[in-house]
Amino acid sequence: MSTSAPARPVHRAFNFNAGPAALPLPVLERIREELLDYRGTGMSVMEMSHRSHEYEAINDAAERNLRKLLAIPEDYAVIFVQGGGSLQFSSVPQNLALPGKPIDVLHTGAWTAKAIGELKKSFLYNIAASTEAQQFTRVPRPEEIKLSADASYTYLCTNNTIEGTQYHSLPASTAPLVADMSSDIASRPVDVSKFGLIFAGAQKNLGPSGVTLVIVRKDLAERADKNLPTILQYRTHSKEKSLYHTPPTFAVYILGLVTEWIAAEGALPGMQKRNEAKAKLLYDTIDNSNGFYGCPVEKSSRSLMNVVFRVAGGDEAFEKEFVEGAATANLVGTPGHRSVGGTRISLYNAVGLDAVEALVAYMREFQRTRG
Amino acid sequence: MSTSAPARPVHRAFNFNAGPAALPLPVLERIREELLDYRGTGMSVMEMSHRSHEYEAINDAAERNLRKLLAIPEDYAVIFVQGGGSLQFSSVPQNLALPGKPIDVLHTGAWTAKAIGELKKSFLYNIAASTEAQQFTRVPRPEEIKLSADASYTYLCTNNTIEGTQYHSLPASTAPLVADMSSDIASRPVDVSKFGLIFAGAQKNLGPSGVTLVIVRKDLAERADKNLPTILQYRTHSKEKSLYHTPPTFAVYILGLVTEWIAAEGALPGMQKRNEAKAKLLYDTIDNSNGFYGCPVEKSSRSLMNVVFRVAGGDEAFEKEFVEGAATANLVGTPGHRSVGGTRISLYNAVGLDAVEALVAYMREFQRTRG
Repeated sequence: MSTSAPARPVHRAFNFNAGPAALPLPVLERIREELLDYRGTGMSVMEMSHRSHEYEAINDAAERNLRKLLAIPEDYAVIFVQGGGSLQFSSVPQNLALPGKPIDVLHTGAWTAKAIGELKKSFLYNIAASTEAQQFTRVPRPEEIKLSADASYTYLCTNNTIEGTQYHSLPASTAPLVADMSSDIASRPVDVSKFGLIFAGAQKNLGPSGVTLVIVRKDLAERADKNLPTILQYRTHSKEKSLYHTPPTFAVYILGLVTEWIAAEGALPGMQKRNEAKAKLLYDTIDNSNGFYGCPVEKSSRSLMNVVFRVAGGDEAFEKEFVEGAATANLVGTPGHRSVGGTRISLYNAVGLDAVEALVAYMREFQRTRG
Repeated sequence: MSTSAPARPVHRAFNFNAGPAALPLPVLERIREELLDYRGTGMSVMEMSHRSHEYEAINDAAERNLRKLLAIPEDYAVIFVQGGGSLQFSSVPQNLALPGKPIDVLHTGAWTAKAIGELKKSFLYNIAASTEAQQFTRVPRPEEIKLSADASYTYLCTNNTIEGTQYHSLPASTAPLVADMSSDIASRPVDVSKFGLIFAGAQKNLGPSGVTLVIVRKDLAERADKNLPTILQYRTHSKEKSLYHTPPTFAVYILGLVTEWIAAEGALPGMQKRNEAKAKLLYDTIDNSNGFYGCPVEKSSRSLMNVVFRVAGGDEAFEKEFVEGAATANLVGTPGHRSVGGTRISLYNAVGLDAVEALVAYMREFQRTRG
């Protein structure tokens, strides 16, 4: 019998990527453990038929966990689809727009701009509010929102990854609220009954890229014209419990593991507490830097998920040095979105407080030596 | 220092699933090895930004490997999309149908029926051949095919998983040939220049579910109306090299590993040789069973990928016993498709000859004791 070598410690970065993003280490370890033989089946989950009892159990558990975590009412379907938020930008109006009734849009940045781009092609819509004149440094105030009398639905993006803004209270709307919740789903408790539809790519708070969660009130899923491609109708996936066609099985499996991890870590109140603590530490560090670091976002709209800030007033050479030094210090994913530059730190559920502590220590040291 | 326990041998089934299906063991082992730390990055591939250099290298390698394996000409785009074949059933006509010019369809079973179902909603089409009257037990003969003079394109499914049929030579067509190659892509050499477009879900011969390969002649990708949702236009993904939006990064990574494995195993000629040997062993066992096993497919149309057969003339009790006994003997995935029953054995690239040897030994023993 041979003697084991000491286990080589696994190198793990502090990961602030904006999505795809950090996953909980216990989830990755479980995936690794089950990768060649899922619980005695002799197969990886990737190798299993999506019509097998084993996969159906995985699919059911993922839905059940989400229903419990988000307290999703019975009259909502919970479905897993492909194509990300980018496909939802057309799927939502294709399914929910009513003839002659405009879509009210709250425009808050790059992601609502993408959604508007798809509306422009074929749909009646109305920009009910926009903070473009404020360079999207906040979300609209209630009194700024001018809703139509007869909208098909009211569309918003609850958290704007690129601009670093987030709604901390929901706008009033008599038409169904439809939310792109890709970057803050499951990061805090949410009252699903306030929405007609919620969609979210999994790759920020819920799992890997390649699976998109749609939560839709069942009566709204019946609005779609049956001549829409079958796979693009929400009712198809609702009726077939996300098994109309071959789903992205491995991504759904991981989403299920992540929802288990969230439940074990205190469910959504637990996530909120963690996320508030992480964001507070980082925003406090910025706000207490005597202007060396600066967050352009209005305080009431600051995102708990994506913290954008400039270094030394946006000096590009400084920012480059900051980002490169961070990478050397094992802090990954600090550059801002390619469209805006600067610095962005994403603090999704799986990012630990230890990662933010390491980051702020680096920030203080960077300021001390360069400030 | 502790003494290591002897490594527990991993339990692996002989996996004949129709898709998702068996993956090569060395690929799974590599995924496992890199799962917590991809080559020193301190992240899983799932946790990496799709805009990072590391992921761009993965994306590029997957495309490059496919171009080399399938000898894809320069004037074709190679793109990775989501939604599987089921989304392609509508995407193909949305992108390639020309006004007033019908789509010619060769109807060979359940999957072409699904494609026709989408055409019925909005497109002009013509069933140029159908083997429905033959219960789809073969593909059409050249003289049976009645093409339109001015078709937008000619559509076929090169391998029919449910019916167990496969084209062994291509039909002539002056219009561009469009092929659903989901279940025999990369299983044998193919002359891509004979096609206008090829699509294939990865989950049979190329990787896990959740990523779909599209190979499209670049001039055809320009046919689409720009009012089609951006994400559904092939030109979008061609221009953005499959990075228009967040791709299913982990699935693309695995597809890349599978293409490396195929190259190392003799590329497509090597795959063809393996696949012919496996299919011959199984068909010979059926044909030499004195009718105890029976394949309904005409010999010239028999699939090398999916072998369908009945047990004891289709006696349901016998077939149930056969399938259950197979599972007990570690032979997984032998039931026929839920729509047709019977028995189906899928022999994709990653299924080894050893698996087929184990299966035929079981078949002979089953016949000896029950025949």
